[in-house]
Parts: sequence; C-alpha cells; structure tokens
Amino acid sequence: MACYHRPDANTLQALKDMANTLRIHSITATTEAGSGHPTSCCSAAEIMSVLFFHTMKYKAQDPKNPNNDRFVLSKGHAAPILYAVWAEVGYLNVDQLLTLRKMGSILEGHPVPKLAFVDVATGSLGQGLGAAAGMAYTGKYFDKASYRVYCLLGDGESSEGSVWEAMQFASFYKLDNLLAIIDVNRLGQSEPAPLQHKVEIYRKRCEAFGWNAEVVDGHSVDELCKAFWQASMVNGKPTAILAKTIKGKGIEGVEDKENWHGKPIPKDKVEEVIKAIKAGIQKSKKLTPRQPVENAPTVNIENIKLASPPKYKHGEKVATRKAYGVALAKLGHSNDRVIALDGDTKNSTFSDLFRKEHPNRYIECFIAEQNMVSVAVGCCTRDRTVVFASTFATFFSRAFDQIRMAAISESNINLAGSHCGISIGEDGPSQMGLEDLALFRSIPTATVFYPSDAVSTERAVELAANTKGICFIRTSRPENTIIYKNSEVFEIGKAKVLRKTDKDVVTIVGAGVTLHEALAAAAQLAEEDVYVRVIDPFTIKPLDDKTIVCCTKGTKTKHIITVEDHYYEGGLGEAMVAAVALDPSIVVHRLAVSGVAYSAKSAELLEKFEIDATAIVKTVKDIIGNKE
Amino acid sequence: MACYHRPDANTLQALKDMANTLRIHSITATTEAGSGHPTSCCSAAEIMSVLFFHTMKYKAQDPKNPNNDRFVLSKGHAAPILYAVWAEVGYLNVDQLLTLRKMGSILEGHPVPKLAFVDVATGSLGQGLGAAAGMAYTGKYFDKASYRVYCLLGDGESSEGSVWEAMQFASFYKLDNLLAIIDVNRLGQSEPAPLQHKVEIYRKRCEAFGWNAEVVDGHSVDELCKAFWQASMVNGKPTAILAKTIKGKGIEGVEDKENWHGKPIPKDKVEEVIKAIKAGIQKSKKLTPRQPVENAPTVNIENIKLASPPKYKHGEKVATRKAYGVALAKLGHSNDRVIALDGDTKNSTFSDLFRKEHPNRYIECFIAEQNMVSVAVGCCTRDRTVVFASTFATFFSRAFDQIRMAAISESNINLAGSHCGISIGEDGPSQMGLEDLALFRSIPTATVFYPSDAVSTERAVELAANTKGICFIRTSRPENTIIYKNSEVFEIGKAKVLRKTDKDVVTIVGAGVTLHEALAAAAQLAEEDVYVRVIDPFTIKPLDDKTIVCCTKGTKTKHIITVEDHYYEGGLGEAMVAAVALDPSIVVHRLAVSGVAYSAKSAELLEKFEIDATAIVKTVKDIIGNKE
Repeated sequence: MACYHRPDANTLQALKDMANTLRIHSITATTEAGSGHPTSCCSAAEIMSVLFFHTMKYKAQDPKNPNNDRFVLSKGHAAPILYAVWAEVGYLNVDQLLTLRKMGSILEGHPVPKLAFVDVATGSLGQGLGAAAGMAYTGKYFDKASYRVYCLLGDGESSEGSVWEAMQFASFYKLDNLLAIIDVNRLGQSEPAPLQHKVEIYRKRCEAFGWNAEVVDGHSVDELCKAFWQASMVNGKPTAILAKTIKGKGIEGVEDKENWHGKPIPKDKVEEVIKAIKAGIQKSKKLTPRQPVENAPTVNIENIKLASPPKYKHGEKVATRKAYGVALAKLGHSNDRVIALDGDTKNSTFSDLFRKEHPNRYIECFIAEQNMVSVAVGCCTRDRTVVFASTFATFFSRAFDQIRMAAISESNINLAGSHCGISIGEDGPSQMGLEDLALFRSIPTATVFYPSDAVSTERAVELAANTKGICFIRTSRPENTIIYKNSEVFEIGKAKVLRKTDKDVVTIVGAGVTLHEALAAAAQLAEEDVYVRVIDPFTIKPLDDKTIVCCTKGTKTKHIITVEDHYYEGGLGEAMVAAVALDPSIVVHRLAVSGVAYSAKSAELLEKFEIDATAIVKTVKDIIGNKE
Repeated sequence: MACYHRPDANTLQALKDMANTLRIHSITATTEAGSGHPTSCCSAAEIMSVLFFHTMKYKAQDPKNPNNDRFVLSKGHAAPILYAVWAEVGYLNVDQLLTLRKMGSILEGHPVPKLAFVDVATGSLGQGLGAAAGMAYTGKYFDKASYRVYCLLGDGESSEGSVWEAMQFASFYKLDNLLAIIDVNRLGQSEPAPLQHKVEIYRKRCEAFGWNAEVVDGHSVDELCKAFWQASMVNGKPTAILAKTIKGKGIEGVEDKENWHGKPIPKDKVEEVIKAIKAGIQKSKKLTPRQPVENAPTVNIENIKLASPPKYKHGEKVATRKAYGVALAKLGHSNDRVIALDGDTKNSTFSDLFRKEHPNRYIECFIAEQNMVSVAVGCCTRDRTVVFASTFATFFSRAFDQIRMAAISESNINLAGSHCGISIGEDGPSQMGLEDLALFRSIPTATVFYPSDAVSTERAVELAANTKGICFIRTSRPENTIIYKNSEVFEIGKAKVLRKTDKDVVTIVGAGVTLHEALAAAAQLAEEDVYVRVIDPFTIKPLDDKTIVCCTKGTKTKHIITVEDHYYEGGLGEAMVAAVALDPSIVVHRLAVSGVAYSAKSAELLEKFEIDATAIVKTVKDIIGNKE
C-alpha cells in the first residue's frame, strides 16, 4: 500500500487560509444578496478548501473537461461557497460573487448548469449522491477512466430515503471512485437534524450499507487531507467521510446556534465578522489544483440510428412495451454509449431485450426509482452516455422530484414508462399509470411520446436518443395491431392522419390502446355510413395541434373527440383543449378515466370507464344528433 | 421480564397446518384468476399464520375496531394470502377467494380499503412501513392504547429509500408498538434482490437505523412465535424480524427458482401441487385469534371549526402561508385530534405556529417527504386523527407516488404546500412549486384550494379538516393584501366575483399572487375607462366554472384571461379551458410560467414571465383591440 505524505505546514496553513477566504466570500455575497445560507457554507469551508485545492484533479479553466474529477454539491443551498471556490481558482471573477441571486446573474440561489462547473442542479435535498453514483458508474465501467467523483451532502438531507437508495447502489456496484462527504453540522433548517452530532451512528449506517466510512473533524484540514487520500486507496467500496462540523463556524455568536439557517449576516455586523475571520489568515502560499490524468475516451453520441428498421408483418399484434425493448437493443448496436437502466421490472418493460444483447451496458437499479432517475442523470452528464431508464409509467411518480430537477439540470435522460392506464387490467389501480402524462407534460424541457404501434414505438426510441431535454415514452401492456408500414417516417410534433374522407363528421384523436378503439369505432360507424377522421398524435408534447385543427376544419361539425387511457387532468384531452382555447370554431369532447379504477379484464375496464369503441361511437352519434 | 411460554405441540402443528391452508388458498385463487403472485404468498405463509392466529389481537368480525392490532401488507402483491387469512378467520367466505381479480370482486390484485381489514392500499412498494409508523405513532402518543402495529415487507422493496425514511422515523420516536417483518425470500421480480439471503446485512442495517432486529427461519412457526413475543417485550425501540424464507415454499419445482414472480401455477399442474401441500396438513386443532384490549378512546372528528374567526385588518398584508399556520393552531384548539406534520420547514410553512400551541400534536418528520405523507396516511386511518402535513409545494413532488396511493387508500389527509411559484424569488427554480397543481389535480379524490388572502386561507384550512379525500392547500410566500371581510363565507367549488360592472369587457381569473396582479390590472385599466371582471376561484378542483362562465357571458367579448404562478400544463388555465371545452362562445387566454425559471426578485420574475399586472393589462388591450 502506498504511503501517506502529510502536506507540509505551509500547505496546511494555506488550506486553512483558503477555507477562511471561502467563508468571507460566502458571507459577503449572501449579505449583499440579502438572502442565502452563509452558515451552511461555513461548516463546509475546510472540506471545500481541501477538496478543491489539495485532493481533486481538474483543469480549473475547463470545468467540463471529461478528465476532470467531478464534484456534486448535494447540499445545494451552500452554493455561495462553491462559487467562491471557482472564483479562487480563477474561473469566475471575484467581483462576480456579489451578483449572487440577482436578476441576470448565473450565480443563482442554488447551483444550476448554466455554470460549466455544475453538472447537475441541486437544491432539492438528497438527490446529489444518486447523480454522483451515476457519474462514478460511468467513470468506472463505461469510461474506464481515472477521474473520481466527490459529493458533499448535508446531514439533514441524509433523512431522505433517496440517499440510502444511492448508498446501496454505490456499494452494490463497488464504486470505489466515489467519495461522499457528509457535513454533519448538527442543525437543520428548523431544528437539529435527528442524529445531531452522533457521527458514530452515521458511520454505522454507512458501513451497514456497504461503504467504507471514516469520522473526521471537518474543520481540520490535516484530517481531511489524510481521509481523502485514504479513501482513494480503498478498493471495491465507496467511501463516506463523516465530517463533524459546526454550523456557522467562524462567525462569532452564530456558531452552532439555531435560527440561523438561511439567514445572511446583517449588514451592520458583517464587517466585524469578516474582520475576525481575516485575522486568522496568513496568506502563506498560493494553492493550485492538481491536474487530471487524461484518459477519458472521446465519445460520440450524435445521430444515433436504429441498427435496422422496424420489421413487423401486416396484421401482427405486438405490445408497444415490447417494441421499446426491441428498438433499444438495436440502438445499442449502433452506438456503444447507449445504456439502459431498469428498476427490477425489465421482464415487464422489455428492457431485458437490451440487457441480453448488451449486458455490460445494462444497469439494474433494483426497486429504487428515485435513485434510478438520479443515476440516469449522472450517467449522461458531460454527454458521456445516452441513457434510457424504464419502469412502470406510474412508478415514475416516485421520482417526480428527481425528474423535475433533471429538467433544471438540463439533462437529456430518456424515460420509458410501461403499463400505462386501466388497460393493464387485473393488477389493479396501484400499477396503472393514469397521471404520468400530467407529470411529464408539466416538465418544461420534456418531449412526451405516446406511440400506438410497434413501428412508431421503435421510431420514438430512435428520436428520443437524439433529442435534447427529457424524453418520456409511454408504452402499453396489451398487444395491438401494427398500424404503420415499416418504412413510415416519424417526427416529433407531427401527427398522423389515419382515416380521412370527404364526408367526415368529426375528428377522433386517440393514442396507444385508445387509438385502436378509435379505429374500431370508425370502422363500425362507416358501416352505418357515418365517417370520421382518426388521428394519431404520436407526441403529446409537443402536440401537433396544427394538423389536428386543420383536419378538423374539414369535417362537418368541427368537433374533436379525444380518447385517452389516463385521468381527465393533465393528459391528451387537456393538451388538446389548451391548444384550441383561442379558436372558438372548434369544440372538444374528452373521453378519459375518471375516479379510482379496480381489478378486472382490460376490455371490461375500457368499457366501464367509457374509453372504448362503443363509447366513442356513442359520443360521435351524440354530436351528430345534436348537430343535425 | 415476563417469561416466554412456548406454544404446545398441538398449537404449533395447527399453525403449520394453517400456513399450508393459506398456501393452498393463494395458489388456487391465483390459478383461477389466471394471474397473481402465489410464490410471494408462499414465502410468507408461516409468518401470516403465526401473526393472525397466534400473535395479533383483534376482533375477526369487526376488522375496523379501533382496539384491534393493525396489519399492513407492504408487499401488496401477496394480497391473496391476506384474503386467505380473513377467509380462515371467518370474515370472508372461502368461496369468495375464487373471485380474486375479477370484475366486481372486492378482492383486487393488490389490497384496497374496500375491504374493512385493509387500512391502506398497497402495491406500490416501500410504502407500507411509513403508514404503519403513522398508525403506531397514533397508537402510542394519541390513542395511548394497547393495540400494536404489524407490517410485512418484501426484501425487494427494502431497496426503496422510503423504507429507510420510515425506519429512521420509527426509531427516532421509539415506536416499540411497531413490528416490521421482512420476508427475505431472496428473489425479486426479474432477478435476485441485491442482498439475496444475506439476512445479517439486513440486521446490521436495521440496527444502525435504531431498531431491535432478530433473524429467524421464516418457515419455523416455533421461531416466529418466540420472536414476535420477544418483540412485544422490547421497550423504546421498534423491532424488525428478518425472516429468511424460500420464494414459492411448498410448491415443488418452483421453490427458490427465478422466473416465477407474478405467475400462477398452470391449471394442469395445480392439482398435484395442492395435493402435495395437503399431505402435510394434520388438522389437529382449531385456531382462534386473540381478543384485543379495549382501551382505545372514542374519537370525534366531525364538524371541526376554527376556534375563532379570522381577525385581520383592512389593508393589512399577510402571506397566505402564515395564515395557514394561524388557522391550524386555531383548529387545534377546537379538536384535540387535529395534528400537524412538517418536514423541517415549519418555520417557512408556519406550521410552527401550531407546534407552539400544541407541541404534543406536532410530528417533526425531518427531511423525508415521502415518509411524511405515508405517516400522515397512517395517522388518519380509522378516523383516529385529522392530519395536516406541510412542506414547500414543490417538495410534494417527492411524494407523488405516496399521494397517488393515498387516493387509492381513500385517505383523508390534508397537505399544505407553501412557496408556490416563481414569486418566491431569489431561492431559484429548485424551490419553486410550478407543477403542484398538475400533480394534485391528477389525484382523483383531491380538492385543491388556492386561497388568495389570509381570510380565505383560514377558511380553506377549516373546510379541508371536514372534507373527505385528499385536500391540498397551496400557499404563497409573499405578503399580500387582505381581500375579504373577516366574516366572509367560503365554500368548496364556489368562486368569488371581486370586480364587476355593466361595462366589463373581459373576465380575469387569478389566484394567490396573480389575483392581486389581476386586481391591480383592473384598477389600472379602470383609469383608462376599460372595465374587467375579476374572479377568485378559491378552489382549482373543483373549479366553479358555472360562476366564471356566467360572469363571462355578461362581458362584452366573452373572453376569459387566466393568470397563474404555475407552468402552463395542468394548472388553473388548463382546468379552465377544459371546463369550457364544449362552449364555443367562450375564449380563454392563458398567462402562466413557461420554461425553467431562475433566481431574481419576486416582482422581477412576475414581470419577466408575464404574469403580472402589466402583462394582464396588455392581454386585455390585445383582446379588445382585436374585438373592437
């Protein structure tokens, strides 16, 4: 085993000085902003100083360099000290720190990736470690590179279960390139954190979750240097450093006191506070970050295509969830940076088709959907991979906060939710995705695919791989007929008009199983000489309202019927009415699921909840009855 | 310490026999249904037998009796064995078991509270323990009664972080009336669970999280009887029993085999399987459950009123989040079953006003929102309490799956989300609730309050306390002017028309901060002799579209402008357009937040995202410009 060389006294003093300099920046910036969390910065000052000026290897002028060590500030409210670090390494201007939290400044209240040194946005607690684990997994298994991943957590946020999902994940996959530091400063926002300063309990928990764990005095640069070095020597396990610290450390009268969370030092006291901290600074030696080992491979994730086109027979019945797996496996053959994640549902979502062909690029995340999404976000930072993560559509509700933060992180994750709607049948309401469209439509950077047959599903997967922002692909459990030719071309925001005559009375928009119900209804009505247009929107966000409206204007009644296997709120129907809100010539009838569903056969439920062909036929007849 | 009396041989044999009988019911019912999880039932057969026929105390013919021990089947997919138990105690008819998963049967694929013996719906994994902890907290601290709470978990679901949130909560609050059993049957759905049969690691984790923990052979009724008894003797700590079991135990050729999750035994093999199990049954002795101690107090949670009416001065500025705390504290004086929960944000949500006056009825849940919601659900089962749980609106996205399941559980929890929208200002997008209306509108049993001043907020809190289903109260950070008289009466689904003249051109609907912007816009327009109606919807779900439409029909243009501090998707605007979708005479313009926001002053953001008075004035002018 390599020997530890204690830094010389000059270096240790310089690290202490740096910690105090970071304190001063944090205090000054928050007082100037009139809000922010200086006390949460001060507890972490020595940790940040040692990490960035002694332990981590990175190019300070090129924060996004793939060879750099990664740093995730899971306790995002300590943002000012992160900004202070990057000012001290020379990437930001020191004056810029005073723009904190102001209109137009990239130095926001919590870190966002407008800053090149921020890979993932934080501020919703307990999410950083999962993202860091995704980065570490990528570094160890895909990049096979030297860079290490550091994550700084608060003690309060360790109450979040997502932290323990990440802990289990990281030890299961032996992520010895991952170091977590818990800044145990005892105090939460409104009262002490449950474990207060009981660092030994933190240590036990970390060890029970398979980590190497060390307790240190978080204000001793000496202990921190050694602990971080020791962590780098550990094989087969991630390391957690439990740093016992004082909230507000260095601020006289504020140290370890309650009621100081998220409060800047008042303007009339700040000068005195800073003077006291400055008194301890000796300015002995200039510190420069260590340079990284340059062994991260060059990666190309542009323009990824299906290795072969869809290959289905006319009239064949295939579930869209299965086509998802087929397409994903094909994508994997085109680009070795395509990876798949699942939460122990791979034999239901069909992501196991990918695993069978690309076992080294499949990450089993077990039943921990929050962490699965965070790991996905981590894996695709710095464009290292193209990630697809799947589970039942409704279980993405478990990770709504992670998905919300992924949008703020400018992440390009692709998520596939199977088992949407009541059409899953017997398993009952706990397994039915009936709110997933509402969830994903509310994500500002989202593209929402809702393919209706296997051909369009394959193309949705291909398009998602090449689309920025968060992509969601909604798939269905039942097997449905192939609608499209294998050569059909699909685009985001482009609907397909499947039935159209000169005599049409209304337009029906359906997706997934309800598109097939719409087609059945159209056929049934045609036998009675009633003609309707049927449209497959393909994407629900963006919705191709132009095509739908244009198509509808050619019908006799100018009425649209939307039919969806989703609750009334936030899905296809509301997207449609919102799109035509300013056009009084169009009337929209919505058929959707209302109320909590129950166990029964798929077809029985479609009938009971009135989203089947019979309900559509009835609605059409009501409309023309009213109109004629 | 009391002495353990080992059950006699007859009793032990009868418990073994019962386990096998439960196996047979589970296998028969799932084969008849053609779907379901017999192997997940079989691993738990001895556990269920001992719990229900030896350990637990309850009235079998009165499952909802408040004195009964509680049981939560967190591994909800093992529902058939739960139904089998209740058939064997005589509450269900044995024949009824064959209706499993069929249309019209209350025996659904996963347990739901249509069944009197089910307090909370399960089926989304990892949620049972939090609910059980809420029940145990209620039993120990509010009911001060003898009943105990039992929760059966699967090993796979222990990967869910929510389990560890509940573990920490239960030990922190010394819930020694809570027993968790983990059925460590090694196998998940698609592959072995990460810890396989390493029960010692489970034990370490439980102990590190502050629990008493025992490892047992989960198929030994003898060991189970003793372990459950020992658990009942432990003071100050909850107990976890780590039961090492075999998935599919008792089914020849299926035991401990992969690829048998969620698969019934084929019809042509079931007879042989059952014959083999039957061979082990001796039918020695009839077992009857033990009777409970009857010491749970009678509780009345009907018709709860504010202890005193709102008391604000004209022109006073009060944040609705503060009025929430004021009202909650008052409610607490009217009824001693009103309780409050928060996730370490009580000094921001103002639930600390409740805590100050009712410290024994406040539960600090720390930074673990999933568990907070599950605990809330647990606390109000069997109508024992009226729960209000609060955090920032956006952090309820963390608990979306728990809220979704709470609706399926027919729960009456009340949730209050503060800090909605961009109007929170400097803290930035991670803290802004911009998707919470979309979330809560998609909950089928939800009532969504969005009060705009302190008076209406107080009444929203009072109404929520008396309203079935899930109530969400959205509150704002900024201080806004009091709009209503202290005597104003509010109803769910009843909007308030705040400005109305004979000369109005359009109707503006706003809520929270945007209602104040609408009022400012109206005043500004009036100076230019342009008149508009302004409506406060009070509840977004249900939305009082009747009043809004009726009001709008009296305006010159019949246009509505909705303004909301929320994303475009799923909020007030979409609720409005959906409500008027069938009325072509009404046109709706929506002003809402588009895209990811950033840190800046509240007013700056309202202006930039065009949901302030200026944007409203401009929209009105555009409409009348187009119309005139």
